Amino acid sequence: MRIARFSIDGNVAFGAVEGDPAQPDTLAIDIIKGIPFAEFELSGTKVPLSKVRLLPPVLPSKVVAFGRNYAEHAAELGNEVPTAPFAFFKPSTSVIGTGDPVPYPPFSSELHHEAELAVVIGRMCREVPRDRVADVILGYTCANDLTARDVQRTENQWARAKGFDASCPLGPWVETGIGLETAADLAITCTVNGELRQAGRTSQMTHPIADLIVNISEAMTLLPGDVILTGTPAGVGPLDIGDEVAVSIEGIGTLTNKVIKRG
Amino acid sequence: MRIARFSIDGNVAFGAVEGDPAQPDTLAIDIIKGIPFAEFELSGTKVPLSKVRLLPPVLPSKVVAFGRNYAEHAAELGNEVPTAPFAFFKPSTSVIGTGDPVPYPPFSSELHHEAELAVVIGRMCREVPRDRVADVILGYTCANDLTARDVQRTENQWARAKGFDASCPLGPWVETGIGLETAADLAITCTVNGELRQAGRTSQMTHPIADLIVNISEAMTLLPGDVILTGTPAGVGPLDIGDEVAVSIEGIGTLTNKVIKRG
Repeated sequence: MRIARFSIDGNVAFGAVEGDPAQPDTLAIDIIKGIPFAEFELSGTKVPLSKVRLLPPVLPSKVVAFGRNYAEHAAELGNEVPTAPFAFFKPSTSVIGTGDPVPYPPFSSELHHEAELAVVIGRMCREVPRDRVADVILGYTCANDLTARDVQRTENQWARAKGFDASCPLGPWVETGIGLETAADLAITCTVNGELRQAGRTSQMTHPIADLIVNISEAMTLLPGDVILTGTPAGVGPLDIGDEVAVSIEGIGTLTNKVIKRG
Repeated sequence: MRIARFSIDGNVAFGAVEGDPAQPDTLAIDIIKGIPFAEFELSGTKVPLSKVRLLPPVLPSKVVAFGRNYAEHAAELGNEVPTAPFAFFKPSTSVIGTGDPVPYPPFSSELHHEAELAVVIGRMCREVPRDRVADVILGYTCANDLTARDVQRTENQWARAKGFDASCPLGPWVETGIGLETAADLAITCTVNGELRQAGRTSQMTHPIADLIVNISEAMTLLPGDVILTGTPAGVGPLDIGDEVAVSIEGIGTLTNKVIKRG
């Protein structure tokens, strides 16, 4: 199931997206009664997708992002591949949805895209054993770990470089029909103005999804709606004002955002 | 005014703490009607402080913590004093209040205390000009930026080292009667089992409070209740299970937590 969060006529709700993404006219949202983090029902009330505004599919209390988790990407920036995973946070104020604009951060002159598979946590958990990881996952979505690369080079910790407003596009929806094994080998791409910039497979992760969730949940409680970013494949590069950047993941969908001048 | 958040008989409220902290029997809480981030009134209904449980004084959407902002502390860990501020995040799941236990993080064997002045943001803001910084501050409280020092040494980014559960004690309350000039020169101490470990003054910050808020708000929106940690003076050191650690700041109060075995 593809679970979207959306607004229509000023109301916000979750819904299940039905139809074929390749034929946008067929897409409709069946409004969910309740929230996707508990038992819920489909209301049967359907709205054409074209009539709603998609929002970030979840409102995470925290986004935990793992760095340098694809060897070729670590190498392209001249970094070692870490022997153990390491993580940083992106704050809730950085989260936007598909179609939302990305204001170019005024303290940087080197904004970069980073296409990533995002894991959405479905239930409160801590110290998750490896064989229970699948149980705490609601589903998967696309993420763009937008980075002020010049700031990242000069600041020891990355709060500003990777935490600025709109630096965490998520969407278009959460795909709950993918299991951990399938998620471990999906094609992931990033295009800028339609031109291919990043192309990889999630199988290239140095530390697979289960390792990342074991690693972070050993230290901290994860809450429903929290998001884990799993690293970006090679091919990161600059974005300019006016560019349209799109992250696509096989079996999930496409997350599209346009870079604008910050007002 | 000292604004506390507390629970009594299962209800949670904000209140103004009255009386003399040196004479605990005189302390009472006047319950606030409304929330401290907007116009509010004191109800006149008072409860002895000894009858309530103090909670973290705010529930931050994010805690932004600045690193190495006291030269002597940077030196004691063998680090350079950064020429520009740099920040990292502590997540909402790391926040606890005074009196709450700190479970020793099981993935570390080197838990350290770091006494810090915490700034509590009072209103939503972004790109705060230097001369407007005082306007966005609700007040000040004590913080302990608990750190798994061994993990910090081996992981490039500090999500686990400084973001584990209970790693951000805040309290006992928010002092709103201190201005930016006064906050710039307060005594700050940390004791462990009553023994003095850290003693400094906020005047020793390399980058003063106003610079930190200008720096971070240039990149991201700050929300009411968000917290800025301003760095720790020299004297950081280990905590063991059973230790009672207390952070005191002149004119604010004392934040006390006991380290326990994680269950």
